[in-house]
Amino acid sequence: MLASRAVQDPSGTRELLAGYLEECRSLVLEELRRIIPAERHHAPFLYQLMLDYPLREAKGLRPALCIATCRALGGTLEAALRPATVLELYHNAFLIHDDIEDESLLRRGSPTLHRAHGIPVAINVGDAMFALSLRPLLDNIGAVGLGPALRILQAVARMTQESVEGQALELDWIRRGAWTLSDEDYVRMVEQKTCWYSFITPMVVGAIAARQDGERIEQLASFARSLGIAFQIQDDVLNLRGEVGTYGKEIGGDLWEGKRTLMLLHMMRHVSSEDRAEAERILILPRPSSETAPEPAALDAQLDRLVEEGELTVVGRQRLREARNAAPRRAEKTPEQVRFLLSLMERHDSIGHSERVARDWLQDAQRRFDVCRGWLPPSIHRDLLEGLTSYVLLRAK
Amino acid sequence: MLASRAVQDPSGTRELLAGYLEECRSLVLEELRRIIPAERHHAPFLYQLMLDYPLREAKGLRPALCIATCRALGGTLEAALRPATVLELYHNAFLIHDDIEDESLLRRGSPTLHRAHGIPVAINVGDAMFALSLRPLLDNIGAVGLGPALRILQAVARMTQESVEGQALELDWIRRGAWTLSDEDYVRMVEQKTCWYSFITPMVVGAIAARQDGERIEQLASFARSLGIAFQIQDDVLNLRGEVGTYGKEIGGDLWEGKRTLMLLHMMRHVSSEDRAEAERILILPRPSSETAPEPAALDAQLDRLVEEGELTVVGRQRLREARNAAPRRAEKTPEQVRFLLSLMERHDSIGHSERVARDWLQDAQRRFDVCRGWLPPSIHRDLLEGLTSYVLLRAK
Repeated sequence: MLASRAVQDPSGTRELLAGYLEECRSLVLEELRRIIPAERHHAPFLYQLMLDYPLREAKGLRPALCIATCRALGGTLEAALRPATVLELYHNAFLIHDDIEDESLLRRGSPTLHRAHGIPVAINVGDAMFALSLRPLLDNIGAVGLGPALRILQAVARMTQESVEGQALELDWIRRGAWTLSDEDYVRMVEQKTCWYSFITPMVVGAIAARQDGERIEQLASFARSLGIAFQIQDDVLNLRGEVGTYGKEIGGDLWEGKRTLMLLHMMRHVSSEDRAEAERILILPRPSSETAPEPAALDAQLDRLVEEGELTVVGRQRLREARNAAPRRAEKTPEQVRFLLSLMERHDSIGHSERVARDWLQDAQRRFDVCRGWLPPSIHRDLLEGLTSYVLLRAK
Repeated sequence: MLASRAVQDPSGTRELLAGYLEECRSLVLEELRRIIPAERHHAPFLYQLMLDYPLREAKGLRPALCIATCRALGGTLEAALRPATVLELYHNAFLIHDDIEDESLLRRGSPTLHRAHGIPVAINVGDAMFALSLRPLLDNIGAVGLGPALRILQAVARMTQESVEGQALELDWIRRGAWTLSDEDYVRMVEQKTCWYSFITPMVVGAIAARQDGERIEQLASFARSLGIAFQIQDDVLNLRGEVGTYGKEIGGDLWEGKRTLMLLHMMRHVSSEDRAEAERILILPRPSSETAPEPAALDAQLDRLVEEGELTVVGRQRLREARNAAPRRAEKTPEQVRFLLSLMERHDSIGHSERVARDWLQDAQRRFDVCRGWLPPSIHRDLLEGLTSYVLLRAK
């Protein structure tokens, strides 16, 4: 399909996208199995876990962007496949480490890796995925030639630097308890943390693999940037509205984590100082921990002994037991508090504001794509790239 | 000094080593400041923290090995400096992530990065150091030529893979509660987890930077491997005997963590099945957490209320308070238990066994160095490499 089908019917966009993404995803998973030495006897557990996130239900947006860009520019699938697979590997490594850093409980509908296997294993699996990403890019010299292979390595170096800087920026906001942040602050963070590895680099690398260079790469990159910003804002809106199962994250997940989204920042800028103080107090609380800490049985035994010895009444024992079971070990966010945050957002139309900002960025992306369309010959691959702009809106429905 | 001084006097080895290591370390720190964009306004906090571990008191063994190997083979300082710096960056990134994974409290005499700044920041700082290591290796093409630069990249890819596999092996032992492990199992783990990034790759990369190839690189690598194994075993012995301040880790640190050292595995193979069961029970317990969790004041208030209401006697209240203060929130290793483990090691001469094994590997390293000495011209750099074998013993004193 990647080579032949053309799209006349705009209502077929969703179908085209689904088919194209699925095909890229299966090619990349196949390549991933070649890169990950699953049979290495040294560390079978390590390599099984490296496939865990990639094999979970996912869109496979990044590999599709890379492959479509390369092919739209006349490059071969072979030239794009290895870099596309490496980008998918990076993406999943970032997810694993991000999930630890954000204390996320679910990823794509299943427990996060660190919850299933512990933080030490999850850190190391992410590191292993970074480690394995270098060799395929070096082996790629044969498929794309020395010059492009080195430029792809440079692009990946830039990408990883942008990603960790974006992550550092967000962690720094958390550390400082910073809430007076503008839309521009948010956009800068998302550009670094998400756009570079999810949109800009996949397209730039695809273009390099097709031996493209110069100004046209800049034009593609600026389209990718705007599309990525729109995508992330829309993603945060979906996260808030989504349900477990259909979206793969827990309900209101970002609010539980206190993640700084465009919506939340908008709300914090517009509420009364009283409400902001209360919201800050809530946001700083941790989410409820998934495991209820087991109480030492020793306490029960001691209460029984005190009753036997006449130092405690049966009523007193009952009340101490109840208090123990009711009291959280540390203060945590409650559902009421999260609902309070949601009500503040509704009152100030923060979600509506986010959707308008997302739409502006999407229109910006469409304008930037029109520039590229001037020199990109018609093909299903160009259709895919263009179709992504409507996909951002389609998936909201 | 790196260029000129020669060593006639064997008793001057310690002095030669100290001076050579110190000089390499200061060159590498200078280069590190060039690689880390300290002034980047995006994430100043991130880049300050990347220098935290590297600036702590350290030997700087890896950069010295890399530089000495390159120069001993006639290569220039310039050719080795950037790869040596990148290896130092990797080393410190591994340390940051390892410290999280091992729940270590101290590193080089100060709190570990995750204890000082939280796990999320520490994971990201490590990732950032991995991210920044790629570009200098690409920029290195000018200094060493394309072929060697690509071979250095391949060597680094191999190194990172070996390191994460070694780490996975150890984490897998922990996960499975595996204790019936031989000296050979231990050596295989240490070779992957430590020797590759601390000894083998620094020397191999130094040799490649000097445009060396073929069999001689293999001979240097096999010397590095044996030296590294001896070094790590000796390091574990020092860790057990060391004191806070002089060694930079807490007393008996590895035993508190339950780290599988050659000594501990030897002891576990030789104790009675009763003692082994008890030792396993102790080793599985976590170390005491550094923070004592604050007790909810609410409990005190409730006890007072129960006394007022006649449901609890004053004696009963006193006993409940004492029990609460005495009981750890979760079972943790106690100093008595760690001393028990130490006594089992002493009874079975496990430390003596480790020292003998370390000495055997050191002699093996010396034999392997003699092969290299056959084709390495005399120089202070060759002296440094040779001197390291006695350094492993010297530092034990």
